[in-house]
Amino acid sequence: MNKIKVVAGIDIGGTNSVLGLVDAKGNCLVKDSLPTDAQNGPDILFETIFNRIDELIFRHEQALDLIGIGVGAPNANYYSGTIENPVNLGWGIVNVVKKIDEHYHLPGAITNDANAAALGEMEFGVAKGMQNFIEITLGTGLGSGIIVNGELVYGQDGFAGELGHITVKRDGRKCGCGRLGCLEAYVSATGLKRTALTLMAKMTVNSTLRLLAPVALTSKDVFDAAVLGDELARECFQYTATFLGRALADCVAIFSPEAFIFTGGMAKAGDLLLEPTKQIMEQSLLPVFRNKVKLLPSGMDAGDAAILGSAALIWHQKHAQG
Amino acid sequence: MNKIKVVAGIDIGGTNSVLGLVDAKGNCLVKDSLPTDAQNGPDILFETIFNRIDELIFRHEQALDLIGIGVGAPNANYYSGTIENPVNLGWGIVNVVKKIDEHYHLPGAITNDANAAALGEMEFGVAKGMQNFIEITLGTGLGSGIIVNGELVYGQDGFAGELGHITVKRDGRKCGCGRLGCLEAYVSATGLKRTALTLMAKMTVNSTLRLLAPVALTSKDVFDAAVLGDELARECFQYTATFLGRALADCVAIFSPEAFIFTGGMAKAGDLLLEPTKQIMEQSLLPVFRNKVKLLPSGMDAGDAAILGSAALIWHQKHAQG
Repeated sequence: MNKIKVVAGIDIGGTNSVLGLVDAKGNCLVKDSLPTDAQNGPDILFETIFNRIDELIFRHEQALDLIGIGVGAPNANYYSGTIENPVNLGWGIVNVVKKIDEHYHLPGAITNDANAAALGEMEFGVAKGMQNFIEITLGTGLGSGIIVNGELVYGQDGFAGELGHITVKRDGRKCGCGRLGCLEAYVSATGLKRTALTLMAKMTVNSTLRLLAPVALTSKDVFDAAVLGDELARECFQYTATFLGRALADCVAIFSPEAFIFTGGMAKAGDLLLEPTKQIMEQSLLPVFRNKVKLLPSGMDAGDAAILGSAALIWHQKHAQG
Repeated sequence: MNKIKVVAGIDIGGTNSVLGLVDAKGNCLVKDSLPTDAQNGPDILFETIFNRIDELIFRHEQALDLIGIGVGAPNANYYSGTIENPVNLGWGIVNVVKKIDEHYHLPGAITNDANAAALGEMEFGVAKGMQNFIEITLGTGLGSGIIVNGELVYGQDGFAGELGHITVKRDGRKCGCGRLGCLEAYVSATGLKRTALTLMAKMTVNSTLRLLAPVALTSKDVFDAAVLGDELARECFQYTATFLGRALADCVAIFSPEAFIFTGGMAKAGDLLLEPTKQIMEQSLLPVFRNKVKLLPSGMDAGDAAILGSAALIWHQKHAQG
């Protein structure tokens, strides 16, 4: 019997890490998860992860053939194979691809979660067959993975694709990066909460959002209120869409992509965000680009997306090699 | 004797067109120019150009072997091989690559002048060996050719790379494209003239620029005055640099390029523009990108740059094929 070739996809999160074995078609055949426990250091984490993978492979030894390991992690650098000073994890520089090579003698690769999501989308999601598109992850922050001519934009140092940190408002909101007016200070779960406060100050309408202490307010509260027709909450999405739509129009002038594809927790807002965003984007475009660019939700199952994205790092290399 | 392989490079301008024969190392061996006479239509122009090339080749038949024809032109589309409704020329859609194929049965390619400049820079100029950089042409407008992973960014339709039309000031200056606040309304020869008027209104200092009728004012006047120490003229470059530097910082977040390379008439301002631009860019960058990105003047001889860029279209294809 021919064994099924699989890639191990690993996603390192601030709290939990997940792993799974993914075949060439993007089926996640088995998966597992574990607490990241970053304070114990990267050596213990990766030893534990490799042991879990070894167990999964051992259990399915007759059926599965492991051909590579892909990793998604914060501050990951594809070129050097390292994780570099991730703030959330409190590590220094960790050479992950070297660890993979030492343990497996198999191809290994690492990148950040937004880049992994873009590759996953291209290999297994709604971007199949697309050569030029931009994946946008809307979570606590705003990440992006940009595909040009069928390849990721890594730039000279591996750190390209920081769409969340283009400046959209001069002297605007303080961003987590220390600068002012970054896109992610407006367009992200955190940005949406801040927008709710901005609009509570600006507008006079009643809103259920006014009943919640700002410290406890979540983007989910804003979403739920908007779904129930709360005027202020709906205006929050319109406000967010204004910043996002204009930024996308600038990206279209630069990249002329086939699509923007949205993933991450806040992407669940769906049309509540994407419809006004599309409208603002179209209004802001050069005529030559109008009615050409799609805004799409991710085509990957949210539960497996992180694993699929990481595994896609290796599958993409294999497919590119023919 | 082995013949020297050459590519014909053709640049179609609004007033004049130029052509030349370029070897693999970027030497422009012979060249010629002619009035574009756009009103006579594209058929006559290209027939004349092909005749000129044929004469040059015939004259050097023993020495030169023509292997392809590259063309730079406004509104050119690399994918379709066409020039599409160029405003300056008053044509409809012209299939240039088809004309080349019919006349020569040799590889032909076409793109706009900024993209051609980027390829020329990579093949023959200061971007040799660079895989990620952005060429910016500063003339009447602002054009750009963006290289990612060693290839031009064309996007889904061939029209990517319109950096001149990202919005840098909400409800700002009216741009030639009809929209408001585009980068090229601030950073271009035309933009510099407009900035002189803005600052004449804003500042109270004396300036030689106040002696000239606005209709006659040129960007060269502003440059000459700045060189002579005119305070208002110098402030014009500072103002321009503020918009350019911030826009470049956004581009770094997106592309993490090795360099921005400047060409075109206004690039002759050199350090008068590039030094303050570099300063503003560095101030605006995410820390991870600081002190990594070069701002460089073009390495191509200004007189041959358009021909070299067009010829590079074909030489780049040859080199990419190995």
